[in-house]
Amino acid sequence: MSSSDIFLGETIGTAVLILLGGGVCAAVTLKSSKARGAGWLAITFGWGFAVMTAVYMTASLSGAHLNPAVTVGIAIKDGDWSNVPVYLAGQMLGAMIGATLVWVAYYGQFRAHLTDPETLGEEPIEGPGPVLGVFSTGPEIRNTWQNLATEIIGTVVLVLAVLTQGLNDSGKGLGVIGALITAFVVVSIGLSLGGPTGYAINPARDLGPRIVHALLPLPNKGGSDWSYAWIPVAGPLIGGAIAAGIYTIAFA
Amino acid sequence: MSSSDIFLGETIGTAVLILLGGGVCAAVTLKSSKARGAGWLAITFGWGFAVMTAVYMTASLSGAHLNPAVTVGIAIKDGDWSNVPVYLAGQMLGAMIGATLVWVAYYGQFRAHLTDPETLGEEPIEGPGPVLGVFSTGPEIRNTWQNLATEIIGTVVLVLAVLTQGLNDSGKGLGVIGALITAFVVVSIGLSLGGPTGYAINPARDLGPRIVHALLPLPNKGGSDWSYAWIPVAGPLIGGAIAAGIYTIAFA
Amino acid sequence: MSSSDIFLGETIGTAVLILLGGGVCAAVTLKSSKARGAGWLAITFGWGFAVMTAVYMTASLSGAHLNPAVTVGIAIKDGDWSNVPVYLAGQMLGAMIGATLVWVAYYGQFRAHLTDPETLGEEPIEGPGPVLGVFSTGPEIRNTWQNLATEIIGTVVLVLAVLTQGLNDSGKGLGVIGALITAFVVVSIGLSLGGPTGYAINPARDLGPRIVHALLPLPNKGGSDWSYAWIPVAGPLIGGAIAAGIYTIAFA
Amino acid sequence: MSSSDIFLGETIGTAVLILLGGGVCAAVTLKSSKARGAGWLAITFGWGFAVMTAVYMTASLSGAHLNPAVTVGIAIKDGDWSNVPVYLAGQMLGAMIGATLVWVAYYGQFRAHLTDPETLGEEPIEGPGPVLGVFSTGPEIRNTWQNLATEIIGTVVLVLAVLTQGLNDSGKGLGVIGALITAFVVVSIGLSLGGPTGYAINPARDLGPRIVHALLPLPNKGGSDWSYAWIPVAGPLIGGAIAAGIYTIAFA
Repeated sequence: MSSSDIFLGETIGTAVLILLGGGVCAAVTLKSSKARGAGWLAITFGWGFAVMTAVYMTASLSGAHLNPAVTVGIAIKDGDWSNVPVYLAGQMLGAMIGATLVWVAYYGQFRAHLTDPETLGEEPIEGPGPVLGVFSTGPEIRNTWQNLATEIIGTVVLVLAVLTQGLNDSGKGLGVIGALITAFVVVSIGLSLGGPTGYAINPARDLGPRIVHALLPLPNKGGSDWSYAWIPVAGPLIGGAIAAGIYTIAFA
Repeated sequence: MSSSDIFLGETIGTAVLILLGGGVCAAVTLKSSKARGAGWLAITFGWGFAVMTAVYMTASLSGAHLNPAVTVGIAIKDGDWSNVPVYLAGQMLGAMIGATLVWVAYYGQFRAHLTDPETLGEEPIEGPGPVLGVFSTGPEIRNTWQNLATEIIGTVVLVLAVLTQGLNDSGKGLGVIGALITAFVVVSIGLSLGGPTGYAINPARDLGPRIVHALLPLPNKGGSDWSYAWIPVAGPLIGGAIAAGIYTIAFA
Repeated sequence: MSSSDIFLGETIGTAVLILLGGGVCAAVTLKSSKARGAGWLAITFGWGFAVMTAVYMTASLSGAHLNPAVTVGIAIKDGDWSNVPVYLAGQMLGAMIGATLVWVAYYGQFRAHLTDPETLGEEPIEGPGPVLGVFSTGPEIRNTWQNLATEIIGTVVLVLAVLTQGLNDSGKGLGVIGALITAFVVVSIGLSLGGPTGYAINPARDLGPRIVHALLPLPNKGGSDWSYAWIPVAGPLIGGAIAAGIYTIAFA
Repeated sequence: MSSSDIFLGETIGTAVLILLGGGVCAAVTLKSSKARGAGWLAITFGWGFAVMTAVYMTASLSGAHLNPAVTVGIAIKDGDWSNVPVYLAGQMLGAMIGATLVWVAYYGQFRAHLTDPETLGEEPIEGPGPVLGVFSTGPEIRNTWQNLATEIIGTVVLVLAVLTQGLNDSGKGLGVIGALITAFVVVSIGLSLGGPTGYAINPARDLGPRIVHALLPLPNKGGSDWSYAWIPVAGPLIGGAIAAGIYTIAFA
């Protein structure tokens, strides 16, 4: 794969991932959305199928990592870090494009939600902003070590599933069925390990949209919760490295 | 593929698509339906599996576009417009047949819903009619540019997923697995981008049933909201063209 | 396939189908079930995966029709009725075994439900019995022609999807992926066309368990609604024949 | 397969299975979890995708039994018990590791739930503990024979589906699609047969976490319900043996 294909694939793929993933959070959260209150199953299937769509679309260009934790896990496994910067750059750019597209698609819903005293009254303005959850993750209970541990555990499952894929999939990597399996692995992590922190399990998925949240001209948006922002970056990177270690010891 | 196979395939396929897609809207909406109130997940899985069923059934006849936006996207990509009129004719005819079959299957439910003061009282009679949502889409917040943008964005995701399918699927186009992946892409778009406008993402899916709504002898049916009708036609067509452009630049 | 394999396959397969399909109705309906009130999505996915499990298990023995409407549709398509009686016998026997196993698995729940004045008070005792819905289907609005039409339409979709399967599936008939696709076709029909009558779309699925309901020693079980019983038999058989006709005209 | 690969595969696989399966119970049950109250569909899909993820990950190492009932069923079918002790040891160790990881991931949620008088007041402290359901199963109605029968019936379906897999799957055993089919079989059993006892259908899944529940330093955790513990061990083992018998008679 050429560097330009990798960059293009990761940018397009991560943009689609965050457009659809952030989109389902907007759909379920915001006032005047037809999906308002559709619940946790909608969120988890929404993110799972977002991964499937994005992976399926861009696997032929870049292998569809779409996640720095996956990129780091594969780099450790293969001992090859040469393309890592290109992957990370595409992922961060794509995540920011995706989050911006969510804002475009839900423009009126954001305005309605953030200017209505009733919906605003449901949420605290100070600290994490009222619609920050559409962009980035946050914990239900703030506890640095637990939050970090939960993100690490979730990412180990994700990256180990990606790394072991070649062992079953006739060595063809992320093909059609691989995209489907990966989607349901992500649904599984969401259903089972998403309760405490909202399962970032992807540094670009969390950091890119948080930057966009800080930049967008949203009324009453509140803070971007930067004090928490390092956990959904560090946790998934540590998790990806641990998964590569488990893979090397048990599966290689 | 012969013109008659294309016409037959698109007519049958789009009829099945709209029968099942409109059907789930009727099932979840109408009084005296066992599925009443089953929620947004039911709607989105219902439409997704409607696409799967219709695509799977008719892929061998016409390639199963079932959507003018897909037809236009493929025509731009291939530079071949020769069969486009046959595809569009089959899609429009099929959509109208499908919407009529929904009326047959839910005949008593439509009557019960539209003659009961209680269910009718939940909805405004003037403007968009009380059961128009079973046939066609409508926005939660009326804003021409946002509504158009949301339909464009959703359709770009759909058509780009269809166009890139050949790249992963061993070049065989819409086979068995392709039907499944496409189904979940449609579920994804519904969950993530359906909140503002109800995700037409298909001109035939919206216009055909709207015509049927205008023609059917339903009591108290109210207006067919023709002032909005151009958006779910124009948005998806623009989206299909943009997807073909992205495909040509990034994937070809 | 030998007659004994066909009989064995259809008996086991239909028993598993009705055990799991009737099971989800019991799970969602009966007092003291952990799944009580899980809703229409649970019902439709439950029946869909019941079909998948049963088809997948027995496809190698009998081709896994598990439904007289499928058997009749295939017989018309192939012009071969020689094995039809064996298929039907296995399907009816299997359906009755399956319904009996539901009663065993939910023995205490049936007792609790049918002896508690509160749950019994929710439902009419005269006419269709309070737990008849765990065994057989019934309409929300009694209207012979609509009820028949809805069952016909649903079954046309099902049988046409089964008949066209060979066209996409490399001619291998009901293989692994076929079981999955068929499952989601059944979920689709349930979500979209199940609202008016509860989608029998299978004469054995409805008649076999209705006979078991009439025979089982359940307290306060009420009537078995025999006046409706012919519709979920006749409708699916007509639907299967129409599907075979459409297949012959459009796909063969 | 070498003994060490089997042990490693079963340990890792069952740990992932119980981490994700116990995780979804924690997510839906515990106070301060984002998924609290997500319902029975979330539970059943959560366990299904837990099986898929674990099977997919470890099929190349050990064949991914992850369940003593599967191991016993296969041993009876093949008449080869030589590796059974290694399988069982890995499964029990893995289940205990998985349950401990659930405790780590939901550490704060367990504390919050078990120290809040309101959530504690919803549940009985004496007898089965208030969070025991996150670890192990328990019946809604205590009835030894029904509870045992329900577990046997559920496990027959599971193990028969596993044993017949090779018949459709080109003899390749638990490949990629096999993992997906098995996942949905487990969802099906959960939806349809989980109502009375919570569908252990796997002795290691129930006994391993119950031991961990007894050992973990959880405040106000109550008893581990040891009087019931033999049923979700004996029932699935009997079910696995019956499935092997049916397989030998009908399918071999």
